[in-house]
Amino acid sequence: MCRWLAYSGSPILLAELLYKPEHSLIDQSMHARLGVGTTNGDGFGVGWYTPGGNPEPTLFRGTGPAWGDENLRELAYSVRSGLFLAHIRASTGTPVQQTNCHPFRHGRWLWLHNGRIRDYPRLKRTLTMAVDPGLFPYIGGSTDSELMFYLALTFGLERDPVGAVERMVGWVEHAGRRAGVDNPVQMTVATSDGERLWAFRYSTEHNSRSLYCSTAVDTLRCMYPENPVLQRVADSTRIVVSEPLGGLVGAWQPVAESSYGLVTRDFDVVGPFRPAQHPDPAAPTPALADLTRL
Amino acid sequence: MCRWLAYSGSPILLAELLYKPEHSLIDQSMHARLGVGTTNGDGFGVGWYTPGGNPEPTLFRGTGPAWGDENLRELAYSVRSGLFLAHIRASTGTPVQQTNCHPFRHGRWLWLHNGRIRDYPRLKRTLTMAVDPGLFPYIGGSTDSELMFYLALTFGLERDPVGAVERMVGWVEHAGRRAGVDNPVQMTVATSDGERLWAFRYSTEHNSRSLYCSTAVDTLRCMYPENPVLQRVADSTRIVVSEPLGGLVGAWQPVAESSYGLVTRDFDVVGPFRPAQHPDPAAPTPALADLTRL
Amino acid sequence: MCRWLAYSGSPILLAELLYKPEHSLIDQSMHARLGVGTTNGDGFGVGWYTPGGNPEPTLFRGTGPAWGDENLRELAYSVRSGLFLAHIRASTGTPVQQTNCHPFRHGRWLWLHNGRIRDYPRLKRTLTMAVDPGLFPYIGGSTDSELMFYLALTFGLERDPVGAVERMVGWVEHAGRRAGVDNPVQMTVATSDGERLWAFRYSTEHNSRSLYCSTAVDTLRCMYPENPVLQRVADSTRIVVSEPLGGLVGAWQPVAESSYGLVTRDFDVVGPFRPAQHPDPAAPTPALADLTRL
Amino acid sequence: MCRWLAYSGSPILLAELLYKPEHSLIDQSMHARLGVGTTNGDGFGVGWYTPGGNPEPTLFRGTGPAWGDENLRELAYSVRSGLFLAHIRASTGTPVQQTNCHPFRHGRWLWLHNGRIRDYPRLKRTLTMAVDPGLFPYIGGSTDSELMFYLALTFGLERDPVGAVERMVGWVEHAGRRAGVDNPVQMTVATSDGERLWAFRYSTEHNSRSLYCSTAVDTLRCMYPENPVLQRVADSTRIVVSEPLGGLVGAWQPVAESSYGLVTRDFDVVGPFRPAQHPDPAAPTPALADLTRL
Repeated sequence: MCRWLAYSGSPILLAELLYKPEHSLIDQSMHARLGVGTTNGDGFGVGWYTPGGNPEPTLFRGTGPAWGDENLRELAYSVRSGLFLAHIRASTGTPVQQTNCHPFRHGRWLWLHNGRIRDYPRLKRTLTMAVDPGLFPYIGGSTDSELMFYLALTFGLERDPVGAVERMVGWVEHAGRRAGVDNPVQMTVATSDGERLWAFRYSTEHNSRSLYCSTAVDTLRCMYPENPVLQRVADSTRIVVSEPLGGLVGAWQPVAESSYGLVTRDFDVVGPFRPAQHPDPAAPTPALADLTRL
Repeated sequence: MCRWLAYSGSPILLAELLYKPEHSLIDQSMHARLGVGTTNGDGFGVGWYTPGGNPEPTLFRGTGPAWGDENLRELAYSVRSGLFLAHIRASTGTPVQQTNCHPFRHGRWLWLHNGRIRDYPRLKRTLTMAVDPGLFPYIGGSTDSELMFYLALTFGLERDPVGAVERMVGWVEHAGRRAGVDNPVQMTVATSDGERLWAFRYSTEHNSRSLYCSTAVDTLRCMYPENPVLQRVADSTRIVVSEPLGGLVGAWQPVAESSYGLVTRDFDVVGPFRPAQHPDPAAPTPALADLTRL
Repeated sequence: MCRWLAYSGSPILLAELLYKPEHSLIDQSMHARLGVGTTNGDGFGVGWYTPGGNPEPTLFRGTGPAWGDENLRELAYSVRSGLFLAHIRASTGTPVQQTNCHPFRHGRWLWLHNGRIRDYPRLKRTLTMAVDPGLFPYIGGSTDSELMFYLALTFGLERDPVGAVERMVGWVEHAGRRAGVDNPVQMTVATSDGERLWAFRYSTEHNSRSLYCSTAVDTLRCMYPENPVLQRVADSTRIVVSEPLGGLVGAWQPVAESSYGLVTRDFDVVGPFRPAQHPDPAAPTPALADLTRL
Repeated sequence: MCRWLAYSGSPILLAELLYKPEHSLIDQSMHARLGVGTTNGDGFGVGWYTPGGNPEPTLFRGTGPAWGDENLRELAYSVRSGLFLAHIRASTGTPVQQTNCHPFRHGRWLWLHNGRIRDYPRLKRTLTMAVDPGLFPYIGGSTDSELMFYLALTFGLERDPVGAVERMVGWVEHAGRRAGVDNPVQMTVATSDGERLWAFRYSTEHNSRSLYCSTAVDTLRCMYPENPVLQRVADSTRIVVSEPLGGLVGAWQPVAESSYGLVTRDFDVVGPFRPAQHPDPAAPTPALADLTRL
């Protein structure tokens, strides 16, 4: 059910994380250890921001297994970035097509997801209708993951990212309850605006997909003073992953249930993730308000 | 902007129409003469019914240009059918992916389309929400063509095909007027339930994509008594095409503007196509009724 | 390193073996148990003969993982055949492309392979040059598997199949010895002319990829008298597989090392497989004879 | 039968030539004007060198039509290079697959081709055997274009590019004469080592595929003093194209029959292209010498 990684820090070749590590993302496309299955061969994608370049990220997505994609390999060994998100997919039922590969992009934002909305076909129409009408035409594919992104945008992702994702999850859970779907939300999510990187780990059943964050660089330097790479990277460098890329002791910290993290060039912070409970029925979502005008 | 053909009659190899004629459908994928452009290389599809077999048709769709697809060639020279629909695509803006290739299938029904809904991104949400909620989860892709199919199903395609398509077109024109979109509908459509074949030619601007039907077999036998193929096929055999497959004089009749045709094993009929005008605002579509329950 | 199956017997839907069994070929594309790895997601193919139809088989091959291919599923539930070969691929180094998917076809013949020629890049040129010049232009891809097919054709596959494959393997082992490659040949192979089906299991190191054959139908009827399928199929029905499709006790017999099997509509036979040893250097292969004329 | 472009000069976005011009390479994939047909939808590729980076170029190739490839668009608007080669393909018979897309790469070298070797299946084996055995394993696909590259490498492309291509063409013409093939060679070719760019225009029949070169930048500055782009680019900037990218008067010069051009950062030169005539039969090609050791 997918694996992903997100990087924020000094510019590096994408291959440093996608291909080179012992348990790289490419290795995880065939031999994942902590996911639902070992194979994540239903497509892949990577979105990266270019320092000093276009504020909108560049996106590269393909439908074949990542392990065999020559173009991905070429790009990974050629592109440098200080902020990128990469994903390998195991479909939970929606078709394998480029518009269903993560990350998804809207303006400067990227979004990827591991998990699912349970009984998605039953909830899909309700959730689709709740997307802001101005955003609706931008939905490219048919996944629950992309719909969660557009709902988060509807709920204000661009102004208040953590709050928006909390409102989105709360709304999906509310829709699930109304439709009799238990434990609707299962997710780890990464999203970025090109300046900051957020990661979320949450599930309605409080048994979420795996998520890890790299240990702070200054701590790693103390632990591994001989490692030249650690000397070169910026102090604020962080890598967030579905599963550790290698076995270096102490290099990876599990991310707690129901929490979020924020990484910027200057600092990072973690905090609790609390989906908005009991949305006020008297305050319709922007989409519902629009429906009354039909 | 797409080319298609539909066949009803004695079982024949698909290749008899897809590959063998002088201006076969495959030839039209690179050298169309009566379409918007000459190239229809954004995917293809064929759906066929097996006599005495599964009432649901078999579907084969691909995203590459039809002219180069080896699997399509293999199948066409191997599969026989007495009722099949085939389509080659030139995208009008939506992504090239298998779920956006025609024909579309729902149960026993196949549907394909040449044309477009003008300003589709502006109307997409309104049209999507009008699809019956029970049908909504079956929408696979993101085209206007598929949405027209699901709207036709919503309006009763399975019970009253011509009426349903008239109601669907009328509804789209109504939505277009409300949104300030002129001449929203441009279409030739073929649809079948495995027993009967309907074809439609209509556009709001009364200047529709090209459509032809083969001359009645008994007439062709008189015109070409030496042609062995004509002796062998059933009297009721008809081929409906975006553009003629060859230059045999008198073999193809243009289909009139604003008309439909119905072909069965026993007879065929043509009639006027009149979109339902001014739908009663007091009688909401099934989908609107459902929205009130949210 | 690939899995395959071959069927000879009463016509059945391809899906009966490709999709329906508990450990079907599609299941093996993600969860193989007896292969080198669990994943066989580098393409697939199926070739089938149509009873009473074209003596040449129809071929359908794709480059994506078999588990996700909708067209394969559609075909498998639609096509019936009394003789077919199907394969799922795990590349041993050559590119993932349709011309590298098995089975390969030449005239009426189909060929598929699980295994490899060790150090293939070092031997490739020598082996390529030994293919009969008249056959050379038919080589479509770049795999060792296809080259073994064309060498077998060079050595007389169409006249003396078992002898030709013995000569081909002997020749490859000879070329390997000359180039210092140990244990060059690892193979299970299935090949057919549309009337008869051969299977081979051999490796230079005498530790070959797994191969099983279904127990004789009359024996299975005694063991499972209540099973209706066994009542319906012809007595001569046989299925040859890389690994059993299900757990029915006694239904599958391992194929011995260094052996071949031949299945026809009327009988089957097994025998020893003995690669031709020490080819006579005074009797050049047809290809070598041609080289002297350059 | 293919279109291509090659650029050498100040680093620019690939999109400046692939997408932005009035008759860009992407436009030529559907509406070529000077080629054999208008459609070049059988794949595409681009290879670019990164200033100060890896001496080996990065390669991106795809099998779908260039006009619809979203990844190509993303890359073109993201990658800057001062030396790149791009190609759109119309197959002359060999399969559509990534290993048959141009440009081809070997070490630091890139190579692309428009044209064909006439009757290629008849000559393929002879030409294949003439490739240096040490180079043979690097041949990825099945095109005449790639084989011409490996023959040029065999004849010393890395040391004496023009001479090597002259020897290669002379050898192919010699093989053609021996096999009774008239006018075997039809080509425009571009090749580069990352420092210098060569272009060739030649055909045995002296009626070669179209080829143009941009007018010298200092001349264009005089002709168009108001054009800001011309002020910014290096004096040595040159673009070589199958057909002009736009209609700017005087901006494009046809390349003469039987000629070559060399572009470097400092100068460029044109000269006659004279295939080596009558190769000395007593001096076997390296490949033939090797055959005697079999």
